[in-house]
Amino acid sequence: MGESVNLDPLFRPSTVAVIGASDKELSIGYRILHNLSTYRFRGTLFPINPKVDSILDYKAYPTIMDVPAEVDLAHIVLRNTLVPDIVEQCGKKGVKVVIVNSAGFKEIGAEGTALEDEVVRIAREYGTRVFGPNCQGVMNSDEAVGLYANFTFTPLRPGHISLIAQSGGVGEVINNRLYELDAGVRLYASNGNACDISIPEILGYMGRDDGTRVIIVHIESLSDPRGFLEAAREVSRSKPVLAMKSGRTEEGAKAVCSHTGMLLQQETTARMIFKKAGVQYFSSHEDICQTAVGFACQPVPEGRGVGIITNTGGPAIIATDELIEAGLEIPSLSNKAKAALEQELHPAASVSNPIDVLATGTPQHFAAGLRALLSEDDIHSILLHFVTPFFVDCPAVAGEIAAVGRAAEKTIASVAMTNKEIWAETLRIVRESGIPTYDFPETAARVLARMTEYGEFRTAARDEHPEERFEVDVEKAKRLLDKKNRGPLPAEDVFSLLECYGIRTVVWKSAHGAKEAIQAAEEIGFPVVLKIDSPEVIHKSDAGGVVLDIRDSKSLRLELERMQDQFAAEDQLYLVQSFWPGGIEVIAGAKAEAGLGHAIMFGLGGIYVEVLKDVAFSLAPLSRREADKLVRAVRAFPLLLGARGKEGADIYSLREMLLRLSQFVSDFPRISEVDLNPISAGNTREATAVLDARIIL
Amino acid sequence: MGESVNLDPLFRPSTVAVIGASDKELSIGYRILHNLSTYRFRGTLFPINPKVDSILDYKAYPTIMDVPAEVDLAHIVLRNTLVPDIVEQCGKKGVKVVIVNSAGFKEIGAEGTALEDEVVRIAREYGTRVFGPNCQGVMNSDEAVGLYANFTFTPLRPGHISLIAQSGGVGEVINNRLYELDAGVRLYASNGNACDISIPEILGYMGRDDGTRVIIVHIESLSDPRGFLEAAREVSRSKPVLAMKSGRTEEGAKAVCSHTGMLLQQETTARMIFKKAGVQYFSSHEDICQTAVGFACQPVPEGRGVGIITNTGGPAIIATDELIEAGLEIPSLSNKAKAALEQELHPAASVSNPIDVLATGTPQHFAAGLRALLSEDDIHSILLHFVTPFFVDCPAVAGEIAAVGRAAEKTIASVAMTNKEIWAETLRIVRESGIPTYDFPETAARVLARMTEYGEFRTAARDEHPEERFEVDVEKAKRLLDKKNRGPLPAEDVFSLLECYGIRTVVWKSAHGAKEAIQAAEEIGFPVVLKIDSPEVIHKSDAGGVVLDIRDSKSLRLELERMQDQFAAEDQLYLVQSFWPGGIEVIAGAKAEAGLGHAIMFGLGGIYVEVLKDVAFSLAPLSRREADKLVRAVRAFPLLLGARGKEGADIYSLREMLLRLSQFVSDFPRISEVDLNPISAGNTREATAVLDARIIL
Repeated sequence: MGESVNLDPLFRPSTVAVIGASDKELSIGYRILHNLSTYRFRGTLFPINPKVDSILDYKAYPTIMDVPAEVDLAHIVLRNTLVPDIVEQCGKKGVKVVIVNSAGFKEIGAEGTALEDEVVRIAREYGTRVFGPNCQGVMNSDEAVGLYANFTFTPLRPGHISLIAQSGGVGEVINNRLYELDAGVRLYASNGNACDISIPEILGYMGRDDGTRVIIVHIESLSDPRGFLEAAREVSRSKPVLAMKSGRTEEGAKAVCSHTGMLLQQETTARMIFKKAGVQYFSSHEDICQTAVGFACQPVPEGRGVGIITNTGGPAIIATDELIEAGLEIPSLSNKAKAALEQELHPAASVSNPIDVLATGTPQHFAAGLRALLSEDDIHSILLHFVTPFFVDCPAVAGEIAAVGRAAEKTIASVAMTNKEIWAETLRIVRESGIPTYDFPETAARVLARMTEYGEFRTAARDEHPEERFEVDVEKAKRLLDKKNRGPLPAEDVFSLLECYGIRTVVWKSAHGAKEAIQAAEEIGFPVVLKIDSPEVIHKSDAGGVVLDIRDSKSLRLELERMQDQFAAEDQLYLVQSFWPGGIEVIAGAKAEAGLGHAIMFGLGGIYVEVLKDVAFSLAPLSRREADKLVRAVRAFPLLLGARGKEGADIYSLREMLLRLSQFVSDFPRISEVDLNPISAGNTREATAVLDARIIL
Repeated sequence: MGESVNLDPLFRPSTVAVIGASDKELSIGYRILHNLSTYRFRGTLFPINPKVDSILDYKAYPTIMDVPAEVDLAHIVLRNTLVPDIVEQCGKKGVKVVIVNSAGFKEIGAEGTALEDEVVRIAREYGTRVFGPNCQGVMNSDEAVGLYANFTFTPLRPGHISLIAQSGGVGEVINNRLYELDAGVRLYASNGNACDISIPEILGYMGRDDGTRVIIVHIESLSDPRGFLEAAREVSRSKPVLAMKSGRTEEGAKAVCSHTGMLLQQETTARMIFKKAGVQYFSSHEDICQTAVGFACQPVPEGRGVGIITNTGGPAIIATDELIEAGLEIPSLSNKAKAALEQELHPAASVSNPIDVLATGTPQHFAAGLRALLSEDDIHSILLHFVTPFFVDCPAVAGEIAAVGRAAEKTIASVAMTNKEIWAETLRIVRESGIPTYDFPETAARVLARMTEYGEFRTAARDEHPEERFEVDVEKAKRLLDKKNRGPLPAEDVFSLLECYGIRTVVWKSAHGAKEAIQAAEEIGFPVVLKIDSPEVIHKSDAGGVVLDIRDSKSLRLELERMQDQFAAEDQLYLVQSFWPGGIEVIAGAKAEAGLGHAIMFGLGGIYVEVLKDVAFSLAPLSRREADKLVRAVRAFPLLLGARGKEGADIYSLREMLLRLSQFVSDFPRISEVDLNPISAGNTREATAVLDARIIL
């Protein structure tokens, strides 16, 4: 879907009308025209204002109908109640996209929602797309376009970072920070209530834009989670997508609702979407901006090995800590590289990794260090620290760094520890070579870690096979599920459904009444477990509806009598299972997420899930890699490998069970919940089976 | 100790000699004199250089002996091998402190260590104190002093943040960033190898300096952990101490060793010291600098309630998330405050907390919002967001904010989302009122959280009673410990020692040979546990030296026969204990940390400690508050409260046990290790006891 949407009239219009353009300098209607003019929009501008002849030397027109040309984009700055009529005029005029800057729509409640619905209805009638309302607008720094359809203040400067923000305030904070960092922004979009043109559509467009190398997204609430997932997943196969999301806490989420009029979104859902789509998650503006700068000007590292070069010891240690904590590696240098460095550097210099060229390091020293690191096979990115001493020719050092950097095919980031006024020239030389200059070692190290992580995601995503499908009995499963409309299924059907999908269960038999139950137990063999099979009895164990480890017919008979007394008539339905002691108790589950499919859950049972909340989630359908990660994501994973002399679990069987569960719920979207609890996880495939389960429609 | 040290000759000298001063502009000897001169040192400068008559218009002297005045401070910039002789001259001259800038000492190995020891020996002989070597120097921005005894580049600007950094590079990064943030630095010290004047001494001096409001410390390795702990603890009762430490990872720690020549320090040790001393720990330069700015210009909040005011929605939501995640609170407004705001704000404004005055918010709107928040009893700090729209008189808004802020007694931090060039005046007005202006909502929120956390620590530290002492039998414990020099103690002595300190143990008896063992068991009552009591058998359980749940004399006799066969002669020493099933298995321990006393450990037993590594540490001697925090610090703490229908543990008994353990090891520094493993934790005092223990000298 997102694929085919053409947002060129929004981001690359030939003609822009500003409806509500004003000649009053402190008005938004003036500011938008002023910005479009200041940043030299390359197309034609039409202020619409019935009261004046011209604004800022542009001839004004009384209405959009009077404009003597086709209009690609109309930016509407009028009171909310006027908007429907104006959109109708735009529709009649054939305007392709309208930006509705005005507030007073969904975010103010029922009345505003009705107004917003009206706007959408009218626009659809004419095939006009709507951006907003209650939004800032868009920008495009492409020199062929020069579009600043926004009332804010950050100057437009060409670059490779594109930016989508639901909240205009947050968008401007990010835009402004990128400006301060000397990084240009390519496309900017802040679409507020997003009644029509959506974040997934914009994301897809940015993904296809050649000038965009990395995309920052700030989200408050995902109105179309599935659409976002699909768009982000597609884009992140070729370009990194970096995200922030407000409303992580309950209090924050409530604030989002009152700010945007959107529904409350679970933080965990957003995290699952980001993970599945390969979107990197940030909780700090500074980090997201600095990371975007790295992606915008350097290639993605092809491995985890980092070479460090420095002219001061302390900061290199900080970088080492950060890199190692982030899972990167600092490989030793080869003897060849060491020998070369011993020749070229000062005798007191350190010729290991990190290379310390000393505070007196010359341009040649830095160049030699860089060349040595670039020639090492197991070094994939370079972290260069450069403090600017008064007694060194710093611009010359920068010149050598720039020369080596320009020719390099590996990722280079630098930490420039300097007074930015005194050494402005030095900084400029390094930056113009495409090497980003960070203020702090930990910043550069974290950026390299994020870039490396993205490289690994991209490789894995490209190598990933389509979702694995097991041979299963879909037809039978469908028949079983069709027996019921909603609510929990009877245990017999639950176990049959799991069988259809090859999810191993303990040996079981369904039995009507005591006689059949005893017969079943004898066929299965003692010891057995007896369970009452009644959807009405929810907490079976607590209610006395489950008895474990029944060793003979006599005991079974006694229990059956007790249950008959307690629960029901003589033809009560029972489930008789083989009793499995031992095995590690694990749990798995699936839960439908509104508009998104199912989340698959995995964890260890008992206290691990109930007290330590040690469970992990991943969105279905799972790939083999995702299922594997899910099993390994719980803190108690070492127990599955076998700990304290106890046997571990067969990880592969657990992974397969999760994949089959994923296939099952993906085939049947009407399933609301599946609980496999507990699963007894043994050290072979045969010793791993579901002991109890629940399915709710 | 730190109390009495007077570092005035270092930080407030009347006369400074630069030994090795040079007229060559690219030399360090020139740069130091130049910096002292540029930043207008208020005392007298004496360049020492036998080859020239004057440098930078200061008369030069051939040697320090030729200076016609007393010299408080000599800054030495000479080759390492020349330093001992020069220090001797300084000693003879009566110089009070020397800064040894030169490298080539302990950090280069044995030869340099010898040279460094020589310098210290000579200096001590003359009572001269040494700062360095292999260091940058010191600065003092006090207008009465104006001392820039350092070769770096960050301009000196008066302020209230003082800074100690072992690494000069890191110190300069922090100093430079504070300069960029428009924050002045009061005292600066980077003492490199720290052969004499130590970080604890400097910290104590800064603590007593009236112009210092907050102290930043960057550490690579603590050479005197106990001294640091004591100094930091003392200082942080009146001023916040913020710390960073390099060498968190093994790789980083190794780099520290080769950089400073210091011993490898455990990261956990540093964290324990910081926690006990109330030192706030940071892993980012940006965070530590921003937090210092907050402390430097605003009072410490007296509670967790935060009021938010904004003129843009999105960023306030981000702040809400951060504040809540940090444990702060965003109280609702009183009806009185709401009523006042409804009168004063725009009808569409939001009169809850956060208060949204809308993008069109006027100076009066902001002032009304601030006043409302200031008058609420349960609001202790205010987070003000201010995006600068073109259509608002921003300097006037700033003026109102400044006026209210100046008179306020609560903590105020602001987030100014703006172009710093266009609205420079607006920013200046706010800052000059003492309200810090942060770029991002999360930054300001995190700073408020740190400030609140410090306020709580300070209150708790002031209220804290001296360490609780239980009545114990120290004399008997001393006699028992004196029986042995080193190694593990016999079980009988271990249990007796615990008894001396009132640490409840299971009922036990020591027995020589089988006969006594049987008698003991009968006195105690079956079931019992039988343990071999031999320091030689370390892993008793694995070796078959422990048998649980022996139910009668006959079984006991069989086990005794087996043990006699397996281990020893007939007079084997045994420990017979009452067998306790049930109870939650917890562990506690103490371990001597070099130069620091003991660390007390607490956790749940079994997989919690072995697989999940879920243990917490705190330095002895513990206060009641620290012991309480220690018990609550483990992730599995909810299990102690009782979970899944099981009984919980008596937290107070566990806390008391930790306090008694702390008192025990603090009384006997020669104890190297105590393990109380397991402790059976029941739901009463009587049901909580040590089942097995080990003490090593």
